[in-house]
Amino acid sequence: MVEEVKQEGITVKKSEDFSEWYTQVVLKSDLADYGPVQGTIAIRENAFEIWEKIQEVFNKMIKDAGHRNAYFPLQIPESLLKKEAEHFEGFVPEVFWVTHSGDNKLGERLALRPTSETIINYFFSKWIRSWRDLPILLNQWCNILRAEIKSTKPFIRNSEFLWQEGHTAHATENEAEKEVMMILNFYKKIAEDYLAVPVLVGKKSEREKFAGAKYTTTIEGMMPDGKALQLGTSHNLGQNFSKPFDIKFVDKDKKEKNVWTTSWGVSTRLIGAVVMTHGDDKGLVLPPKIAPHQIVIVPIYYKENERKVVLAKCSKVKEELSKKSFRIFVDDRGGYTPGWKFNEWEMRGVPLRIEIGPKDIKKKQVVMVRRDTSKKTFISDISLIKKAEEILNSIQKNLFVKAKKFLQEKITAVNDYGEFKKILEKKNGFIKAGWCGDNHCEEQIKIETGATIRIIPMKKEKMFSKCVYCGKPVKDVVYFARAY
Amino acid sequence: MVEEVKQEGITVKKSEDFSEWYTQVVLKSDLADYGPVQGTIAIRENAFEIWEKIQEVFNKMIKDAGHRNAYFPLQIPESLLKKEAEHFEGFVPEVFWVTHSGDNKLGERLALRPTSETIINYFFSKWIRSWRDLPILLNQWCNILRAEIKSTKPFIRNSEFLWQEGHTAHATENEAEKEVMMILNFYKKIAEDYLAVPVLVGKKSEREKFAGAKYTTTIEGMMPDGKALQLGTSHNLGQNFSKPFDIKFVDKDKKEKNVWTTSWGVSTRLIGAVVMTHGDDKGLVLPPKIAPHQIVIVPIYYKENERKVVLAKCSKVKEELSKKSFRIFVDDRGGYTPGWKFNEWEMRGVPLRIEIGPKDIKKKQVVMVRRDTSKKTFISDISLIKKAEEILNSIQKNLFVKAKKFLQEKITAVNDYGEFKKILEKKNGFIKAGWCGDNHCEEQIKIETGATIRIIPMKKEKMFSKCVYCGKPVKDVVYFARAY
Repeated sequence: MVEEVKQEGITVKKSEDFSEWYTQVVLKSDLADYGPVQGTIAIRENAFEIWEKIQEVFNKMIKDAGHRNAYFPLQIPESLLKKEAEHFEGFVPEVFWVTHSGDNKLGERLALRPTSETIINYFFSKWIRSWRDLPILLNQWCNILRAEIKSTKPFIRNSEFLWQEGHTAHATENEAEKEVMMILNFYKKIAEDYLAVPVLVGKKSEREKFAGAKYTTTIEGMMPDGKALQLGTSHNLGQNFSKPFDIKFVDKDKKEKNVWTTSWGVSTRLIGAVVMTHGDDKGLVLPPKIAPHQIVIVPIYYKENERKVVLAKCSKVKEELSKKSFRIFVDDRGGYTPGWKFNEWEMRGVPLRIEIGPKDIKKKQVVMVRRDTSKKTFISDISLIKKAEEILNSIQKNLFVKAKKFLQEKITAVNDYGEFKKILEKKNGFIKAGWCGDNHCEEQIKIETGATIRIIPMKKEKMFSKCVYCGKPVKDVVYFARAY
Repeated sequence: MVEEVKQEGITVKKSEDFSEWYTQVVLKSDLADYGPVQGTIAIRENAFEIWEKIQEVFNKMIKDAGHRNAYFPLQIPESLLKKEAEHFEGFVPEVFWVTHSGDNKLGERLALRPTSETIINYFFSKWIRSWRDLPILLNQWCNILRAEIKSTKPFIRNSEFLWQEGHTAHATENEAEKEVMMILNFYKKIAEDYLAVPVLVGKKSEREKFAGAKYTTTIEGMMPDGKALQLGTSHNLGQNFSKPFDIKFVDKDKKEKNVWTTSWGVSTRLIGAVVMTHGDDKGLVLPPKIAPHQIVIVPIYYKENERKVVLAKCSKVKEELSKKSFRIFVDDRGGYTPGWKFNEWEMRGVPLRIEIGPKDIKKKQVVMVRRDTSKKTFISDISLIKKAEEILNSIQKNLFVKAKKFLQEKITAVNDYGEFKKILEKKNGFIKAGWCGDNHCEEQIKIETGATIRIIPMKKEKMFSKCVYCGKPVKDVVYFARAY
């Protein structure tokens, strides 16, 4: 007999209380749990394996393009962090400071890296002498520490998170520019082709750019509550760091020049975007390409004498499907009913469930249930691989198409500030509007509505001729939104 | 014309000044560089890619055995670190303390993890309720912070290093015991079969065990200067942590019980062991299985009109060899002579060099030079893959056999304390001797000679009947050594 085991699903609807829904999904599907220090989390294995997939995909992209991974120290002396003034100003409010080791007070305070431009440029200045040493194309996967006090949210905003940060040094401005754009494209590809999260691509305004950058490019997603989520940034740092850090090389023309640097990063925030974008009232829905388990096989038997045959068939089906190296889990655990298992794996977002019972064995079939639409199909044993592949591809595509449609519906073009505010109140989302390029208008809009410029499109759009705030001639048509 | 480029090889002999030799190899072959904070290093791409290989191999081993990766917070509140008293005592002298975030003083000091038993057991106590939740088999790859003031050495002893730490919880003592031994075996396999570094395997004495463990098992290597190097440890923690952390589960018999936990780790110290064990007077020698580049192809031409044909042939050879997915680098950089490149890649330890010049093209051959013996062979184009494979396998084997022979020569069995001290002065190495099991003898030997018990073999040996120090009856025959 199967004994009762407590099971509590998601108890709020995504459409009713999005914030509470998100927290429940993250905690109940064992993606993360709160740490003892404010704003910290444990990234549990179900989430970490998504991160491992992202690492695999991104490593392939950057390594094929000549980058290599390395690792730099976590602790940055205060004097080093201060070398680029704008950068220091931007990060210092959220820096954790190490002041002691054992019982000893340190001679100088050490910052825990809020980002690694300063420490890495310290090394660049030791390593770069000649044009022969360039380009330097490095990346590191590491933890990042930023003291977040307000509105922390698992994966979205934490005092510690994981990311990759690329840091490159080039002989020419043009090369650095190409690097920034290439990486931005990789980021778009990861978001859209793997996570099925559609993004807008563009530049940040001066106000929103990375502290110390010449300019920042970004990919920006739209969450179900109408708030934008910055998902990755690729910065052209110009010579802003290479000058204070004195990173010079002798070029082929024998002249000494400062290098041009870039930096870029995506973080475990991507996992939060996946949860928010695809999840439903039953819990998580994972895109097959990054799901730790793509297929779960649930044996169905109620009598002990059925058990052996059903489990044997499950193994056989797994073996057959393994030919295509799907990531499969056979849930042969005792002590849980099939129904309990269905709920559990739905909450955990496994894209495809296969059910196998005595009747199915007789009919030489299995039951396939896709997570995104709940559609149930009977599949004959001979077309297992073909159908599993079809369904997984279809889920991957469907999730993206649905999210893309949502994103597009959430873009409203407005020419009038009254309308601007009304739309924000009504449905949030991206507001496409004219902007004169003046810092003051951007600032006022932020104060009055909470919306900021999320992206300035790469290609100039000519939809409006007047700034939505001041009415002066437009410099750019931009996308505003409230954001995480 | 090829212009002169400065090149400085290793300027001391390994046999003459081992410590200086090690530092030069590490720095000049671009494995690491010193950071601005005492005892910290950047792990450069040449070393990090060895680490990535180790990660790949070890991840496969533990995942096949049911473990999954996760990530836990870096910062541990002081009160949490204190929960297991012996553990806290052991680690507190080297803990870095965070006291401020931005301008705010924290309510409680936060330790940077010197190891993660306490923070992970904090989560275990939240996650474990029933026998159904067991076993928990987790691992994390992360940075570890321990303030090292004296005798820091890149990879061997640093204030920050990378490692993996496994943490498991089990329903029974027997299961935990099996886990500890399985992992110890994985470690031995990585050291010997991949890094070609032979090890002794055994338990630590009470004095040398992990602070808080019931007992510690270890793999221990022997470095060329006769000092032992601890390369990995697998700890049985018994219920030493589950009791203070109150980690209990309801077992199948409905009784509430404390879980049994284990923890285990290997670190970037492994890279240091590879450098020390296999390097020679020209620099690094890397075992093929973990070498970032297994093969370097150097084109040889002195006239511009030879350039094109030689480079075309190099590409063709690379293409052919790529069928076997060797890791290959074609060094087609301009501005360096072939001789310069030979020296460079020898210093960097690439196992196999292929030279291709106009004469070789005519003769339908290439020149293969193996790094370990410098032996040069002419290989006909038709047996490229076969020969490359043979040579790489032979290098892997040869490095291990040589190191194993060295290790065995460095074990001296002694029955007399005078002899014990003489051997240490003369040649260091492992000293196999009888020990009564008394803490006092172990302590005195350490004070008088600097040697500690490195391992107590798993199988009792009966070679001696008297303690080498006090003459009382032997409890174990153990291996002493001075160690890093």
